[in-house]
Order: sequence, then structure tokens, then C-alpha cells
Amino acid sequence: MKAVVLSSGQVRFESAYPVPQAAGEVLIRVLCAGICETDLQLMRGYMGFEGVLGHEFVGIAESGRYAGQRVVGEINCSCGDCSTCRAGLPTHCPHRSVLGILARDGAFAEYVRLPEANLHPVPDSLETHEAVFVEPVAAAFQIPAQLTISSDQRVIVLGDGRLGNLCAQALRLHTADVTVIGKHSRKLAVLERMGFRTMLLAEAAPDRSADLVVDCTGSPTGITTALQFVRPRGTIVLKTTVAGEQTLSLAPLVIDEITLVGSRCGPFEPAIRALARKEIEVAPLIESIRPLEEGAEALADAGRMPTLKTLLAVAAG
Amino acid sequence: MKAVVLSSGQVRFESAYPVPQAAGEVLIRVLCAGICETDLQLMRGYMGFEGVLGHEFVGIAESGRYAGQRVVGEINCSCGDCSTCRAGLPTHCPHRSVLGILARDGAFAEYVRLPEANLHPVPDSLETHEAVFVEPVAAAFQIPAQLTISSDQRVIVLGDGRLGNLCAQALRLHTADVTVIGKHSRKLAVLERMGFRTMLLAEAAPDRSADLVVDCTGSPTGITTALQFVRPRGTIVLKTTVAGEQTLSLAPLVIDEITLVGSRCGPFEPAIRALARKEIEVAPLIESIRPLEEGAEALADAGRMPTLKTLLAVAAG
Repeated sequence: MKAVVLSSGQVRFESAYPVPQAAGEVLIRVLCAGICETDLQLMRGYMGFEGVLGHEFVGIAESGRYAGQRVVGEINCSCGDCSTCRAGLPTHCPHRSVLGILARDGAFAEYVRLPEANLHPVPDSLETHEAVFVEPVAAAFQIPAQLTISSDQRVIVLGDGRLGNLCAQALRLHTADVTVIGKHSRKLAVLERMGFRTMLLAEAAPDRSADLVVDCTGSPTGITTALQFVRPRGTIVLKTTVAGEQTLSLAPLVIDEITLVGSRCGPFEPAIRALARKEIEVAPLIESIRPLEEGAEALADAGRMPTLKTLLAVAAG
Repeated sequence: MKAVVLSSGQVRFESAYPVPQAAGEVLIRVLCAGICETDLQLMRGYMGFEGVLGHEFVGIAESGRYAGQRVVGEINCSCGDCSTCRAGLPTHCPHRSVLGILARDGAFAEYVRLPEANLHPVPDSLETHEAVFVEPVAAAFQIPAQLTISSDQRVIVLGDGRLGNLCAQALRLHTADVTVIGKHSRKLAVLERMGFRTMLLAEAAPDRSADLVVDCTGSPTGITTALQFVRPRGTIVLKTTVAGEQTLSLAPLVIDEITLVGSRCGPFEPAIRALARKEIEVAPLIESIRPLEEGAEALADAGRMPTLKTLLAVAAG
């Protein structure tokens, strides 16, 4: 099959990559997949991953309960048996594989496989190009799943990219006071058209008054910036991972009694519902749709230029 | 008056330091003061502080509501007027001074001054040598003030020093499962005699099963160690400040969805009550009581050797 493969730090398109064996799981014919910041981090060595990239996708199940239907898939595949799984934390199973990120080939390919328990059918009201956003929208919905966000809270989202945009939209369902601070006028303009207050980082005066700052910068300096905007006893959510080590001073975190919350994958069901109800708008984020064959170039372009979402069209639905 | 003064990175004893002017505050004749890890950090340049060191003390109020009584004092002096104070966070007032730490002479001296609102009378049942621990015990009590700690939680305290010991004791009031991990057999033995399970860091296998890890190491590597012991979705409390920058990888915090909580000064009233009821034991922590005149040497010794608590006897009560 056709696939976009990361190997020895290089991404290349392959036309004869082996089709995965279902092996008790469900084989899925991929229709569309999305490029995520994590893919770019993986290309820089994060997690040491090798194999087919891609973890945001919509496809058609070839077998099982959802055979013939469009599905999206949760990316963590847990053992179900260990103490972490039994404690109700399957996404943290130490034996897990993660689609296109850890020990499991991803969705930038004609076929992908996942356990049936990971799959969710896509409602008819949701276009395939919208449904490919279920995974990142779910990640944004993890913030209100972890924290209680009240309607009087002041929220700042750092980062005007894909995830920053979706986090801002998810948080706006809980409080009206959401400001996005970023570096790219063009991406901030997209947010302004969605009704958000925005600021260029260079022009934003850090007044340390935000109750919650969400770091979606994907940058090692994100947390230091967040500490300049959050109020004493406020909360910073780290939403993006950064490969490698970073240098920072943790003393302000203690002195100001800040709470720092790591946040990763989130719940699919509310994400699907919010997309179906058009509570989350994703069409303005799609900047280009390229064929799978151009996947390697699309990834290189996404790493080089400040783009919002690039989709890879794999097959017609 | 006699005082122990930090100036240009050097600590020296002075015999003719000016007695503070009360200036609307209460002048307090110091009886006893305690050396804290923060004093050692200040000597290394933390906060850029210059002046009389010392923020743990017992003294006799010379005027006001508590005149003639033994008192302890909260260390943050806030303006009471700004938006942070009005929001109920006076210990985070941006205009605050902090006793012996920020823009306010401390208690390693014959006299110290503080606003009356900062003072708490010491009950007769509490010895002066015990009451000098109110400030660090309050800091330990800040952890259960910030977090809900249930009786089935597994807690690990990193650090077998003064603050680690007091945090372990404060946490044991909420859950029986408290383990202290440290580097000093002698200090761990003190904790064992108090009934704690202890481990030498070099011998502890990080099984990532603790619900809560409290970092009292005062070391830049404390947080990295804490990440090895905390379970996914668990909590790390940073209880000690470290001067300067440190290098670490924050990706595990995101991947494992860890919550990191900065924790500083705490509530005096429950600390005084717990000490008066002997729920917190401090006598085993006192390793030496030295006269104020030896303050500079006592600080140098505390920085050089793994000691528990050194007290400075200033005057007879």
C-alpha cells in the first residue's frame, strides 16, 4: 500500500509498504488524515518513533461492528490488564502503543488498524474533512475534563496554531473571556474572524492576571511566557510536548504557587458531538488538502511555514 | 543591636546594627530563631536579598494587642489595597515585603518589627523552642490546604531534611501511607523513629505508583526524581525553591498528565494548634542551639553539613 514513513529521521513516501494484518483488530481504509505538530516533533526525534506517521484520520471500517461505516479512532491502545488500566487510566497504560507515535504504524497510509474498542462512528452530519479534527478537538476537550472552568475565569491561550485555535474554541464553551496570543498575524486573523480577542506576543503586556494560561506554543519558551501572564495561584496547562530538555527557572512556580497541568489526549464523544452541533468550527483551519503521495513534502512544508491544518486526502469516501 | 546580616553575598555578625523603628508596626524582642534552607539559598544569591536574615522566630511583643506576650509572625507583609490583596491573596501581593527574604530585615537580631495583623500569640503549652517551628510547620500545612489528600493515597516525600520531615508529619495527619526518600541515613533514622517508612534514594526503585510526591530536596534534580516516582495523572508538589535556572524535560509531565503544584507559605493557626496538641513532633529535629553571636558560623555549618534544625538563641524568655 501507499504510506508516508519516518525512518532514521527521514520521511519518505513508499508505494509498496505492507498492508497491516488485522490480527484481532479492525482494518480501516483511510479516507483522510491530518498533519499535527506532534508529527513534526516526531520527525525531530521525539519519542524515537519509526514507522508510518499520522494519528488524526477518518476511514471506513472493513470489518466488525462498524463495517462499511466511517470511523475515527482513539490513538492509545492499552493492554486492559495492568494495574494502570484497572485503575481506570487506560490512556496511561505502560504497555500501550500509540497510533503513529509509539510502536504502532499510523494513518498516513491506505490502511491502518486499531482495536474495535478504539473506534467511534462518524455521524452523517459530519463531513469527512471535519471529522478528521475529532482527535485534536478531543485533545482540546481534555482541558475542561481535567479542570473546572467557571464562566468568570480569564483564559489566555498561547499559540495561534492548530491546537491553540481548537483549545480556544473548546474553552469558549465554558467562559467568554478567552484571549489568544500568538506570533502570526495571519493566524490571529482567523481567530478574530471567529470572534476571539487576540494579541501579538510582541505587543502583549504580561499583567499576570489570567486565571488559566494554556500553552499551545510547542516551544520550549512557552512555559516561561505562560508564567508572565498567569496570576498568583493561577493554572498553566501544558498542551504541547517539546522534544529534548529545556532550561527554565521553577522558583516563580513555587513563589506564585502556580499549578502546572500536563494535558494530552481527550474524550472523543464530546468532541464528536460538538463538531456535529457546529459548536467547534474547523473549516477555517483547513489550508490545504494534498494527496497522500505528497505527504513527505506536506510535512516538510508544515515544519517550515506557519500553516494551520494540512490534510492528506488518501481515498474518496 | 546584635544582628546577623547578609551583604554582598557575605554573612557577618554585627553588634551595632540599628534597632528597627516600629513605624506603625509592632516591635518584637526576639527570643529564638531558626535557620531554614531558604536562608542558605539567599546566601547563594536567591532573591538578591541584603539585610538581616531570618524568618522563623519567637519573640515578645513590645506594644499593641499582644504586648508582653510571646508571638510568632507571618512573614508576608502585604499592602492590603491592590487587586491581588482584594482578591484574597495577600501572601501574593506584588507590593509585599517578606521577613528576612524581600525588602524587610529579618529575625536573626535582637529586635524585629512586623504589622500586628501578622502576629499570633503562642499558647502557654508550647515551649519557645517548639514555637519557632510554627512558620515551617505552616508551610507544610499549606500542602493539605491546597490539595485534597484522601486516606487511601500513597505519598512520597523526597528529602529527609527539616522541611521534608515536617511535610511528612503534616501529610501523615491525612493518610497513613507516607514514605520518605532521602540521601542521609542519619536523618532517615530520625524519621524511622517517628514511625515513617524510609528509603535511601540510591536504593529506591522508582515504580511510578505514588499518588502524590512532595519535592523537599531543595535540589534542581528534585523534580526529575519526582517524575520517576509519581503515577500517571498524579501530583507533584514543589515545596522548595532553587536559585537560578535548571535543565529538564517537561514532555513526561504532558505525556503522563502530571499536575505540578507550587507551594509556599501556609496557615499559622492550624500549625499552632497541631504543635500545641503534639500532633507534630519537632524536638527530634533540633540538633543544636547556638547564640546569635555565632549566627554566621551556624549558617556556614548548616550549608556545609547535613544538619536538621539549628536554632539561634537570642534572649532568655
